[in-house]
Amino acid sequence: MKKIYLDYLASTPVAPEVVDAMLPFIQEYFGNPASIHSFGEKPQEAIFTAREQVARLLNSKPEEIIFTSCGTEGNNLAIKGMAFANMSKGNHIVISAIEHFSIYYCAKALESFGFKVSFVPVDRYGMVDPEDVKRAITEKTILVSVMLANNEVGTIQPIGEISKITRERGIPFHCDAVAAVGQIPVDVRELGVDSLSLAGNIFYAPKGIGALFLRDGVKIWPLFHGGGQEDGRRTGTENLPGIVGLGKAAEIAIEKLPFRQTHYGELTRLLRTGIESRIEEVYFNGHPEKRLPGNLNVSFRYVEGEALLLHMDLAGVAVAGASACMSITAKASHVLEAMGALRGGAVGTLLFTVGDESSTDDIDSALEVLEKVVERLRAMSPLYKKS
Amino acid sequence: MKKIYLDYLASTPVAPEVVDAMLPFIQEYFGNPASIHSFGEKPQEAIFTAREQVARLLNSKPEEIIFTSCGTEGNNLAIKGMAFANMSKGNHIVISAIEHFSIYYCAKALESFGFKVSFVPVDRYGMVDPEDVKRAITEKTILVSVMLANNEVGTIQPIGEISKITRERGIPFHCDAVAAVGQIPVDVRELGVDSLSLAGNIFYAPKGIGALFLRDGVKIWPLFHGGGQEDGRRTGTENLPGIVGLGKAAEIAIEKLPFRQTHYGELTRLLRTGIESRIEEVYFNGHPEKRLPGNLNVSFRYVEGEALLLHMDLAGVAVAGASACMSITAKASHVLEAMGALRGGAVGTLLFTVGDESSTDDIDSALEVLEKVVERLRAMSPLYKKS
Repeated sequence: MKKIYLDYLASTPVAPEVVDAMLPFIQEYFGNPASIHSFGEKPQEAIFTAREQVARLLNSKPEEIIFTSCGTEGNNLAIKGMAFANMSKGNHIVISAIEHFSIYYCAKALESFGFKVSFVPVDRYGMVDPEDVKRAITEKTILVSVMLANNEVGTIQPIGEISKITRERGIPFHCDAVAAVGQIPVDVRELGVDSLSLAGNIFYAPKGIGALFLRDGVKIWPLFHGGGQEDGRRTGTENLPGIVGLGKAAEIAIEKLPFRQTHYGELTRLLRTGIESRIEEVYFNGHPEKRLPGNLNVSFRYVEGEALLLHMDLAGVAVAGASACMSITAKASHVLEAMGALRGGAVGTLLFTVGDESSTDDIDSALEVLEKVVERLRAMSPLYKKS
Repeated sequence: MKKIYLDYLASTPVAPEVVDAMLPFIQEYFGNPASIHSFGEKPQEAIFTAREQVARLLNSKPEEIIFTSCGTEGNNLAIKGMAFANMSKGNHIVISAIEHFSIYYCAKALESFGFKVSFVPVDRYGMVDPEDVKRAITEKTILVSVMLANNEVGTIQPIGEISKITRERGIPFHCDAVAAVGQIPVDVRELGVDSLSLAGNIFYAPKGIGALFLRDGVKIWPLFHGGGQEDGRRTGTENLPGIVGLGKAAEIAIEKLPFRQTHYGELTRLLRTGIESRIEEVYFNGHPEKRLPGNLNVSFRYVEGEALLLHMDLAGVAVAGASACMSITAKASHVLEAMGALRGGAVGTLLFTVGDESSTDDIDSALEVLEKVVERLRAMSPLYKKS
């Protein structure tokens, strides 16, 4: 059975060109980039190049890029780092109600240090109203964080409008762009953010590497103190192969962004129309237009989400539950809850995300499987009566 | 010119078996370990196996192993994590005066949160006296940290004796074992520590991966909050290839520890006697017996350390300055200073560290080069008069 993978936001494969770029830095150039002898040269150059590649993808300066070990680290470094660096100015943090757990729980964890967290609501499409952000800000607000694209429902937020508000008030603004970078254009100058996180394994770099854009002059309390790598903002021996891989993936992304947006958009449209024509009692989550092209989040009435996911998997189609990377928690989605989309009765939600390798054949096969699985599960449901 | 590498504590190569173990998790099994569909299975199994391999190396339970991105992260997670988790009990931290920067600056950084740091002195061999640790402890002490083997001078500390003191007082005890793990046997039960850090790139795993042993039941405030990986103690998408590589390197280490101790010890003895017989006005730093077998730290009077290092490099021999991984800072060593070994006048210090691939030929060639370089540099020194 050919397996079909439609869970690219959980992790993409590593692109062959990325593997090729990484291998010499696993097998040959093993020197520590911090060494001042000749074994350190190639590693230093490689990190220099990768920093430029990532900066180009985001339209930042190279020195504004800090390499991290994952999206979660970038988000924690931004939230804790900026909160702790600004403790003397205030103790209030504003985040949206649909942030990724690495923002949500991170901000909540700061409550034990005396911080207060306000949650900005979203509408039924998962969209933040910039006016709500404005209203949430107080004299004591020292940090605002709103994600660029929601990792579950795909809604793209009006970051540029929000950053106008935060800049006016002189409040640092972090943007979790993990779900967006590599799939849609992300320009930190246009967005006007002070920091922005990304993760390599979402766009064809390996797991274990990410980056944080931190605007020149923005203060941060480092999560790691030590020898002084990454200008002291994230010290520790660098993940050399990962960094090289991330740089290459960024270079590829610049080239492939137009293809990705078109290709991903076509596939999710095909999937959506296929579901609409084959299966009744479904609804789609997230904004109808302002959304990630590669994301389709759909809820099926009268079925249970985990059963749906497991039966799809048994039939050879890998998709995510409510959230791609958070299947281990198995809680009801806080995103759908904030959108008011957790309607009464049994509703199962699936998140389909596509990638470069995805094809219309994959979508057709997934639709065949999905139709049968939903039918079978509904047949067992006492609540469902076929119309 | 064949290059000679004698800076293994800055970074080892990645062992070929480790590369082989990693490659499938870069090229083939790209699923997210958090996924509950079939693409997550192999990654999950691989992490399970790696955790067992690392636990076996340290004689811990697998669930006591937390994967990190480097030694610095492990040390920061332990120090900040245990300090913040115990803030309500006290605000006093005790560390040795010769800790690695990732402990030293990490503890100092906590001063902005109201913590006080006491530094336990060392003797001229870089050895901590457990009685001094006892004396430094107060009613408010909530954390003690002493490294297992010093990364600069190689001295191995009496960790077991110190842990008796901390256990008696119920104070968490962290041990930075980055320079030791993989080269000498490290048994967390025997040492009696509550946490212990290691780094993969010191023993034939790649850069970008490390681990923290955290004893069952020891409380920690995570540096990363989020989705819940690593039992919530270090959340974020796992560095899958790195973790697999670390596991394999741990397995290899168990097998090779006897060879490494013998082989490394022979090479550094050869190097030491060679230096003694060829070059006058030198002294060796660190404890004469209780030391890492692969470490030789030697000071040369009437020469400047950086010039020494650079001329060695030009002649094809890569060695470290005072500290292997911290060459970028180029400050006088705080370790030698604490030992009272920064004697008056120009003194240049080199750190030689050997590895599995090092040979007696390497040592002979390095000695040839070293003799000439020291002679040349001294000839230019106005302070030096050949006896």
